[in-house]
Amino acid sequence: MSQLIEYENTSDEVRAIYDDIRATRQTDLINNFWKALANHPPTLKRTWETVKEIMGGPGALDPLTRELIYIAVSVTNGCEYCIASHIAAARQKGMSEAVLGELLAIVALANTTNRLANGYQVPIDQHLKSTN
Amino acid sequence: MSQLIEYENTSDEVRAIYDDIRATRQTDLINNFWKALANHPPTLKRTWETVKEIMGGPGALDPLTRELIYIAVSVTNGCEYCIASHIAAARQKGMSEAVLGELLAIVALANTTNRLANGYQVPIDQHLKSTN
Amino acid sequence: MSQLIEYENTSDEVRAIYDDIRATRQTDLINNFWKALANHPPTLKRTWETVKEIMGGPGALDPLTRELIYIAVSVTNGCEYCIASHIAAARQKGMSEAVLGELLAIVALANTTNRLANGYQVPIDQHLKSTN
Amino acid sequence: MSQLIEYENTSDEVRAIYDDIRATRQTDLINNFWKALANHPPTLKRTWETVKEIMGGPGALDPLTRELIYIAVSVTNGCEYCIASHIAAARQKGMSEAVLGELLAIVALANTTNRLANGYQVPIDQHLKSTN
Amino acid sequence: MSQLIEYENTSDEVRAIYDDIRATRQTDLINNFWKALANHPPTLKRTWETVKEIMGGPGALDPLTRELIYIAVSVTNGCEYCIASHIAAARQKGMSEAVLGELLAIVALANTTNRLANGYQVPIDQHLKSTN
Amino acid sequence: MSQLIEYENTSDEVRAIYDDIRATRQTDLINNFWKALANHPPTLKRTWETVKEIMGGPGALDPLTRELIYIAVSVTNGCEYCIASHIAAARQKGMSEAVLGELLAIVALANTTNRLANGYQVPIDQHLKSTN
Repeated sequence: MSQLIEYENTSDEVRAIYDDIRATRQTDLINNFWKALANHPPTLKRTWETVKEIMGGPGALDPLTRELIYIAVSVTNGCEYCIASHIAAARQKGMSEAVLGELLAIVALANTTNRLANGYQVPIDQHLKSTN
Repeated sequence: MSQLIEYENTSDEVRAIYDDIRATRQTDLINNFWKALANHPPTLKRTWETVKEIMGGPGALDPLTRELIYIAVSVTNGCEYCIASHIAAARQKGMSEAVLGELLAIVALANTTNRLANGYQVPIDQHLKSTN
Repeated sequence: MSQLIEYENTSDEVRAIYDDIRATRQTDLINNFWKALANHPPTLKRTWETVKEIMGGPGALDPLTRELIYIAVSVTNGCEYCIASHIAAARQKGMSEAVLGELLAIVALANTTNRLANGYQVPIDQHLKSTN
Repeated sequence: MSQLIEYENTSDEVRAIYDDIRATRQTDLINNFWKALANHPPTLKRTWETVKEIMGGPGALDPLTRELIYIAVSVTNGCEYCIASHIAAARQKGMSEAVLGELLAIVALANTTNRLANGYQVPIDQHLKSTN
Repeated sequence: MSQLIEYENTSDEVRAIYDDIRATRQTDLINNFWKALANHPPTLKRTWETVKEIMGGPGALDPLTRELIYIAVSVTNGCEYCIASHIAAARQKGMSEAVLGELLAIVALANTTNRLANGYQVPIDQHLKSTN
Repeated sequence: MSQLIEYENTSDEVRAIYDDIRATRQTDLINNFWKALANHPPTLKRTWETVKEIMGGPGALDPLTRELIYIAVSVTNGCEYCIASHIAAARQKGMSEAVLGELLAIVALANTTNRLANGYQVPIDQHLKSTN
């Protein structure tokens, strides 16, 4: 386990990021994920800026859909921390139990068909090879 | 590579499923995936029924969002066939290049943060542990 | 792509292993896998000895069952080479299309339920925690 | 963590499935996995029916071999819950410590050779490409 | 397959990044990876800046060691493109066949022991739990 | 969970390996990993000999670099036990927090670009296909 860097013990550089996390998330709470990343400030800075831009910036996908995609990846990889934190985030953005159920059903299905395609060594159809 | 079972060479059981695929998809084309699964009719039947229900049945998520989730899983697993076929399916359902770009950015990000959470062995915050 | 080391161009050390592969497999054919590993003789030696012992040595599991387990892992990981070579090996040991179908159905199912267990963050039941 | 739906608090639809699980497994105990899936009844129903058919229905593979394949996938994916529950199930079906040892040795080996094939970018041999 | 955006057909924004790639890499050649990412300019920009900083910026690890770590991940995930491009990059930075052999031996070993730890459900030793 | 075989309760065969682990590691402590593997002595023997040779034997890569590669794989796979034990081992061999930070940044980056290459279905450049 890595040390968790608390707000009180940070450098100015890290504190500025913590302040931005707090302001953006509108809560004083800083998740352990960020407190662990603060062990390597360049990673903390880059990751936070990327998360802020991709998950919260302007775009065609609404914020809840973005979280659903995030959960799909985390469940496939089996990342316990990420599953817990992004299911919580998705619920805050309005995810119902029914939507979680549908999401996990699709994730489970895709993990199945991925292996059937692998196992039957299915060649890609010509009509699926065209570029965009 | 498995043999691909063409429509003309199928049993009645398989042909009925092929007919349903054609009717549901509104095209005579049957993808290689299904032609490979036809080597084991119970798998063909179960997989088609599940795909039809989860990807096309009633639910809270719209059909394009379901495809995005499917792609997220397939990209994470690196299943070439599934990536090709579901990107094609998503485009048919209206996915723009911009949406594909946003989708892949989220998938890439989640794959990164999943490993940062693993590597820093981040303990799950108490407030993220509550049940639904 | 790595260079494939042909029998004629090997050192004595590698040639002895190639000879053992040929004798054990009862064929002059040496698969590309071994020809690639010959780029690093200690890896070739260790891998061949381990494969020979685990897949061909004495044990409670019959040779075909061992191949089925091997395929299950390779399909889950999406290793194209390994899927192709071990499906071929399993067919040589008597695997029918029906058995391949059942095998892939189980692999597909396990990949699905693995993600459902992840996604629903299912706590391990007390009665499943006991040691052997 | 998802809420675990206890027998007493279920709908008729879920209770019928719980009853079938109890009858099939010949025990009153219902594992947490099913209690979590009950949050989304269509997933509970589909998953149970598929598990029942694939793991318990007629087929060429005996029940213990099916469990071994299941464990191979779960260990490869690192799904803690599934490893614990299917090792327990396999022991109930007669898996000895020696068989578990052989199984894990094959799983470990395949995970190694999968990466050697990837890393050396081994091209598939012509004679391994033929269809069934 | 995504369209590959050639230098001649880019926007000013993308061209500036292509110019920086060329200058940094000291070659006119732009890999397909970047030409594909140019379909979504924010992803191209973010990914290039991150690669430039992490793989080429100042730090404690020398450039070749960084490539070895990159290859270890790509081989584990089975990403063909990444394996090909980073093995090429590592060779340019002086990787010998012997070092590639040692690298792949470690990657293969770790993929094996990861599954043995999973399969035997090994509890983490108390003395390994302490923080940094 | 598997039973952990303590030194006092082992067969002569296992004890000899435990003794070699103790002598090589210069500590009486035997990690749970080895105590679990002792349930299947051939696996214990083969794994220990391979670890000893690959991680500790002569070679071009220094011991710390070997550990970094090991951690990269374990973090990518999400193997908790392996992450904990090899981060501890790397610290014993002199890994600073800064190096851990750089390592995890590369691992996170590679996991991202692996998926971008998958998702954009990037074809391998001709100049990257040449053999060594």
